[in-house]
Amino acid sequence: MARLTRAQTQERNRAKVLAAAREEFTERGFRDAKIDVIAERAELTRGAVYSNFPGKRALYFAVLAAEAERFAAQPPEPDPGLTPAEALGAFARAWVARLPLATDPDARLGVDLLPEILADELTHRPYAQLLRFDAIVLGLVLERLSPSSGRLVRVAEAALTMLHGASQLAAAAPGFGEPFNVVRACEALPALGLSDTWPEPPIVPQAKAAGETWSPPEVFDALRERPARIDGDGVVAVLGLHRLSAAEEALRAAKDVTLVVVTGQPGELVPLTNLVLADLRGLLKRSCPHSAWPDVRVIVDETGAVAAAAGVSAVSDATETALRVHSGHILLRAEGFGACHAAATSTVPAGSGEPR
Amino acid sequence: MARLTRAQTQERNRAKVLAAAREEFTERGFRDAKIDVIAERAELTRGAVYSNFPGKRALYFAVLAAEAERFAAQPPEPDPGLTPAEALGAFARAWVARLPLATDPDARLGVDLLPEILADELTHRPYAQLLRFDAIVLGLVLERLSPSSGRLVRVAEAALTMLHGASQLAAAAPGFGEPFNVVRACEALPALGLSDTWPEPPIVPQAKAAGETWSPPEVFDALRERPARIDGDGVVAVLGLHRLSAAEEALRAAKDVTLVVVTGQPGELVPLTNLVLADLRGLLKRSCPHSAWPDVRVIVDETGAVAAAAGVSAVSDATETALRVHSGHILLRAEGFGACHAAATSTVPAGSGEPR
Repeated sequence: MARLTRAQTQERNRAKVLAAAREEFTERGFRDAKIDVIAERAELTRGAVYSNFPGKRALYFAVLAAEAERFAAQPPEPDPGLTPAEALGAFARAWVARLPLATDPDARLGVDLLPEILADELTHRPYAQLLRFDAIVLGLVLERLSPSSGRLVRVAEAALTMLHGASQLAAAAPGFGEPFNVVRACEALPALGLSDTWPEPPIVPQAKAAGETWSPPEVFDALRERPARIDGDGVVAVLGLHRLSAAEEALRAAKDVTLVVVTGQPGELVPLTNLVLADLRGLLKRSCPHSAWPDVRVIVDETGAVAAAAGVSAVSDATETALRVHSGHILLRAEGFGACHAAATSTVPAGSGEPR
Repeated sequence: MARLTRAQTQERNRAKVLAAAREEFTERGFRDAKIDVIAERAELTRGAVYSNFPGKRALYFAVLAAEAERFAAQPPEPDPGLTPAEALGAFARAWVARLPLATDPDARLGVDLLPEILADELTHRPYAQLLRFDAIVLGLVLERLSPSSGRLVRVAEAALTMLHGASQLAAAAPGFGEPFNVVRACEALPALGLSDTWPEPPIVPQAKAAGETWSPPEVFDALRERPARIDGDGVVAVLGLHRLSAAEEALRAAKDVTLVVVTGQPGELVPLTNLVLADLRGLLKRSCPHSAWPDVRVIVDETGAVAAAAGVSAVSDATETALRVHSGHILLRAEGFGACHAAATSTVPAGSGEPR
């Protein structure tokens, strides 16, 4: 038998740790689970566990992200919603169908996620931004299905509020409420005429002429789950996990957007980000046609390599840089609050490096 | 200065412990709070703390129950809702107005409640039943405001699902969603025509003729927060915290119902019950006219004295006994699943002790 390469061994150990951790978290819950027991179940050393995951919480997020990937890998709904009401109804049906039953032996696995996220500012702030991003993407999908409706992000937020309540009550009070009524309530939201307008950012930094070449590495789009090219014309937003909701500025003002998600704590926060994005992908696949998905590629830039190609050498959760790119060149660059809006809307000064 | 009686000292120490515990939980969160530090802050011994509360969780529930009492003690809404939509809107407004802001120094106090409840079957099952009871009472209120609507418990459940989601997201993602939209969504629920019928219990135990006298002690109605007499004619349901939702059987079939809530774990579960009931009272006071409240007295029978007067000498969370009482006598008695329905609907046999 051929010996495994180092990378193959690492990959195999990672899979063994994830499988062992899933068992341990399901049986004992997050708080009582022990890294030592996980290592034992995986027939690996403690060190081998820690070489793959910085700690118990990162491992927990990774286990749940793998669950979300399995959910998202199911085939798409052949008959997706074609109106906002239909799409929200299908989204809600997919959500509630996923809720564990009280009798489900796996019901325990996910219940500690929110308490763990809430217990620490480190996870709390990024999660809040990831939820906003969920609402932005779902809102944009609804708007594409009904272009005359105006902004529907508030409708998406109301639906997500209802659905998070359903998840919480499914855990706290199994059997409470009728899932079908949750679906009905979500379907009814678009007709309520909730007031919603997009407020342009009031203070916008100056976008500066740049001129460097734009030659990003090959990337993987975490929203559509496929390799993607991001060297075309458009706006590239490099956003830390505390600034993710600023992506809407770019999405409102530019036709083609690449979102590069960066963090100062990749060990814990990349698994959390992957979890939220896989969940969103799985739900969108089951609720709306692919043609309604927004024109955005979402790159989870774990190593910071894509950010570096965009000239952002040090990344943190507060990173907020946006570029306007054209024909392989960076025409404009903006930094700080409002950067995405600035990069998308500012006039490109003459002689700014755009090849003529 | 006159020396305090033993009862006065106990009352004063209890208040000091609660105030100290509130500070400690607010500053450090439930998990990191320490009984020793609470005792120190209260200038009492550990023993004095434990003589009032069996443990940290009981103390936490009691602190939150005291908060809920303060909320419920505010004056009632002078202009309550007069239709189901208005009442649900007002209920939702009162709910979201109560949510802490992210900047609120007290925001931390309540966030550990649900994780703590979920972490243990002991609290988890009673909480599920308390939530169902919330929905039953709110549903009955809505039905009184619109007698032709049929059962509205499902509508109440959908509203509570939305509102629990809003609470959860206020903690996890401050600023997510627009509270006004949550209110609008709740207002819209009655018009959705959610299907809802009351299923009579399929298997009903035999109600047996009794004949003992019915002379209950003085009690305190925890729903309306006032002393109450419960020696009138009607149905008395003695329900453990795992069987609370069976109260609907009595409420659907009898005009006048007394609910005696009992538990095998009063130290922790009485504060939890008080918390949920005070919350419900505060929200109802702000959302609907007193005349729409259901005809039920809710007695939290901490010592089991009222249950004993009803002939139930050993109480547990599974207790389910119902009586039909008339003119100071117990005419019928039923036990087990369906007991409330049986006591409310069975024919009283001739010569069963009813004075003629």
